[in-house]
Amino acid sequence: MTTATAGKGLEGIVAANSGICWIDGDAGVLAYRGMDIHELAEHSTFEETTYLLWNGKLPTAPQLEEFKKHLAAARRIDVRVIDLLRSLPTTGTPMEVLRTAVSALSFYDSDEYDNTHEGNVRKGNRLTSQIAMIVAIYDRLRKGKNIIEADPSLSHAANFLWMLNGERPSETATKTLDIALILHADHELNASTFAARVIAATLSDIHSAITGAIGALKGPLHGGANEAVMRLLYDIDKTGKEPVEYVKDLIAKKQKIMGFGHRVYKTEDPRATHLRRMSEQLSRDSGQHKWYDWSRAIELYINSEKKLNANVDFYSASTYTMLGIDVDLFTPIFAVSRIAGWTAHVIEQLDDNRLIRPRAEYIGPGYPNHWVPVENR
Amino acid sequence: MTTATAGKGLEGIVAANSGICWIDGDAGVLAYRGMDIHELAEHSTFEETTYLLWNGKLPTAPQLEEFKKHLAAARRIDVRVIDLLRSLPTTGTPMEVLRTAVSALSFYDSDEYDNTHEGNVRKGNRLTSQIAMIVAIYDRLRKGKNIIEADPSLSHAANFLWMLNGERPSETATKTLDIALILHADHELNASTFAARVIAATLSDIHSAITGAIGALKGPLHGGANEAVMRLLYDIDKTGKEPVEYVKDLIAKKQKIMGFGHRVYKTEDPRATHLRRMSEQLSRDSGQHKWYDWSRAIELYINSEKKLNANVDFYSASTYTMLGIDVDLFTPIFAVSRIAGWTAHVIEQLDDNRLIRPRAEYIGPGYPNHWVPVENR
Repeated sequence: MTTATAGKGLEGIVAANSGICWIDGDAGVLAYRGMDIHELAEHSTFEETTYLLWNGKLPTAPQLEEFKKHLAAARRIDVRVIDLLRSLPTTGTPMEVLRTAVSALSFYDSDEYDNTHEGNVRKGNRLTSQIAMIVAIYDRLRKGKNIIEADPSLSHAANFLWMLNGERPSETATKTLDIALILHADHELNASTFAARVIAATLSDIHSAITGAIGALKGPLHGGANEAVMRLLYDIDKTGKEPVEYVKDLIAKKQKIMGFGHRVYKTEDPRATHLRRMSEQLSRDSGQHKWYDWSRAIELYINSEKKLNANVDFYSASTYTMLGIDVDLFTPIFAVSRIAGWTAHVIEQLDDNRLIRPRAEYIGPGYPNHWVPVENR
Repeated sequence: MTTATAGKGLEGIVAANSGICWIDGDAGVLAYRGMDIHELAEHSTFEETTYLLWNGKLPTAPQLEEFKKHLAAARRIDVRVIDLLRSLPTTGTPMEVLRTAVSALSFYDSDEYDNTHEGNVRKGNRLTSQIAMIVAIYDRLRKGKNIIEADPSLSHAANFLWMLNGERPSETATKTLDIALILHADHELNASTFAARVIAATLSDIHSAITGAIGALKGPLHGGANEAVMRLLYDIDKTGKEPVEYVKDLIAKKQKIMGFGHRVYKTEDPRATHLRRMSEQLSRDSGQHKWYDWSRAIELYINSEKKLNANVDFYSASTYTMLGIDVDLFTPIFAVSRIAGWTAHVIEQLDDNRLIRPRAEYIGPGYPNHWVPVENR
């Protein structure tokens, strides 16, 4: 057998053919099914973008209506999963809750054993609606609030904010979240999506793949980065220090400043462009200037000192905070969006499947390293 | 950025350096930390082998005693996880139950937020004991039986059989299971282990990594294969057909016969050697000849017709059945063993971590594929 050694972390290794997401890291281009993320952010909705990711093309008007109807109809969760949410300690993180609850959803999915393309579309549909609901419901439960019934007349983004806050969201809030969901919906073979494909490729099931993906997204090197950005901003607020001075101190202590740089993008992350714009807009509208102003000052400093660009995580922190979302919901909201891409990738993997099973370069004790009886060790 | 295209499914691609497992597929060698699987199967125990996998060398007598004491002391599960097991529908598969329960264990692990080497060893220790307990407890619950208390005086294999059956296991049964656990404990970058490393590399937590690994192991192309072998043997029993004729019919219908061939081994899977021997021994001891005899006849036929060798899954089916274990517990028992290797790999990944993030070769619609208003589609 011929083996080729990959860069550490499979950097630069092509692990799959995929028709879902095109990234040109040098030019700063991100496109879903060939469609530029800037056009989608400007014109599309999360529902339409999800349809595009799953089906390869934009829906016609009747197709879009039907798709939205299916998503709204899937806003139902078995009462036993709600009971599970009630039973989990509030000391856990919302990502552990989401991982556990999504794993439990498979017991109550009527298509559980259907691993066909169509079966997985139906399950992806339910998971898309259910993940958003679980995040909102658990946040209310842990705060001792009542559960808000889903409203099928609302868009995906608006229904999420409604179930989270129990108030009709403003148009600005809905639009901002909708764009954030579009921006996070897919990003080729990022770690969580790759984990989902590795799991799906054993011909396991989509709930297993998505549960694994949620576990990967939980990591601070992946979905957890925007939480870290906001915790930095909160630390600055608490200490009353000047933001750039605060960051200089951290760098002097060899601490990594999260929200900058990206393995794939060598220029600005195109998603950051929109999140910066929305953060600035919310800052103006709300009069809460500090989060945007401090973020911008830090960005300019890191840009000039480290030659690193803000990535998708940097401005999503201040954006979500100005929308009134708790910091430990940032990564769950990433999952609320990325389920669109995860589902697209699981379906694509299974449409032309092969087990994903690389090799390791062995660097341990030489063979044969003989066993010896315990008294002779 | 330079990219290299890997074979589909990352075949032949080296994705990590690892000192845990050495496989020479051409020579049919499997070794943990350089130690041949044949020597371990003959002389070692699951506990000693687990210590070897985690620490790189065999334990001294006091080290082994202490390790066994820790494993026995970890035979405790929070009552809320037991309540969760009681609440799950008996219509689910034991692998879904295990995936969900292991995800829930993180809420009650005192080292939950400790992602250090030592913290993960402690959590691996608990997970090793707890996974075995969950499998045994759920099987009794779904059968309406009482839960059996763990017995700290018993070995890992014996305690599992005790908690599963509520009777003291025979020496033969304990020894057979212990060897099966040694044989399944690690296998380099198999799909579930690779999934665990992809998840851990985001700096998520070991419960996320193991939950994802369980989801991958659940797949019929991975851990589910020995279940499929046993279902074939049951079908032969039910129809009363001659085993080789039955298999010939399946092949004529283009159906895959599970339990044969391996991506890595080009000669006999060294684990199959031991499982065949144990299956034959149990067949003689129990007087239940058919499962071994039919397996052997099918093996000889596939060997001569297809030039494929039996793999680890083929004889584990008849072996577990003669131990009185239900067919849908075969894959969970694989997890009872593989947690040793998963833990070793998560710890090794985190000792020298880099995010695992390959690229995809884009084959979708050309860029730019412009967005058009819905009325113009």
